Amino acid sequence: MGLFTKDIATLDDLYVHQLQDVYYAENQITKALPKMIAKATSPDLKASFETHLTETEAQIERLKRVFEMHGLSPKAVTCPAIDGIIKEANETAGEISDKQVLDAALIAAAQAVEHYEITRYGTLIAWATQLGRENEVELLAQTLAEEKATDEKLTALAERKVNADAEMA
Amino acid sequence: MGLFTKDIATLDDLYVHQLQDVYYAENQITKALPKMIAKATSPDLKASFETHLTETEAQIERLKRVFEMHGLSPKAVTCPAIDGIIKEANETAGEISDKQVLDAALIAAAQAVEHYEITRYGTLIAWATQLGRENEVELLAQTLAEEKATDEKLTALAERKVNADAEMA
Repeated sequence: MGLFTKDIATLDDLYVHQLQDVYYAENQITKALPKMIAKATSPDLKASFETHLTETEAQIERLKRVFEMHGLSPKAVTCPAIDGIIKEANETAGEISDKQVLDAALIAAAQAVEHYEITRYGTLIAWATQLGRENEVELLAQTLAEEKATDEKLTALAERKVNADAEMA
Repeated sequence: MGLFTKDIATLDDLYVHQLQDVYYAENQITKALPKMIAKATSPDLKASFETHLTETEAQIERLKRVFEMHGLSPKAVTCPAIDGIIKEANETAGEISDKQVLDAALIAAAQAVEHYEITRYGTLIAWATQLGRENEVELLAQTLAEEKATDEKLTALAERKVNADAEMA
């Protein structure tokens, strides 16, 4: 979208813009996750990130189907929010000298990503509902449920083990 | 923190770093909200942002007390995540030509901010709990409850009125 034009005139335009933003975000996440897998020490955390990478790839395919249902080709627009969240994760990770503390920070970073996705899919579902796009709502709701489940799994892993290990550092 | 040093060696260091990050984020939010109030058209949305600005100012005071309880002076570290979320909100708003559609986008932007705070306060509470800092947990939990309530109020406002008005645009 042009910097000096106002290309968004309707709720449908805004919905498509948000789809393109989330499409960009999911693609950035598939690039960030392998680095997080490499940095993680806890085998459970590594496994959790690996599962989420597979899930994210499926979510991208699902987004492509939403674009198609909407009569559009998949397209990404740069999303400064996810770029900032990933940049912050990398900067913080770079300042940590202990592996167990790094695991705690990686979980926090992954949960910031999950919450970004939770808010964006929640918004997309509300707008698609308003626009009468029930088929698209159904696909978006599947992804939202997965993001919430991932967030809860990460909370459980942090509270069950990773934070206690980090405190021992 | 230095770019070439690893200043975070313990969970306590990581917790303090996250406190400084959220302190920066809350301060940026108090600068962003007046612009959102000025852009909003719906009186309910304007009022909701005004309430949240007052609440954010109180949350900053609460954070200062958490720093004090921890034996530290309040300090901010740049948080690329909140900067990215706010940048994206401004860019999207700049592309919208209709006032009702802009209201829908402003709610989405505010909810992205809320979810960022929800994930960060959730993490801070988990780490403070692990570190045995019950007094700090109590203050952080008050803010987390407020952020969740704000997010739910915004969802209700979007679904009750703002999205339908935007669709009429």
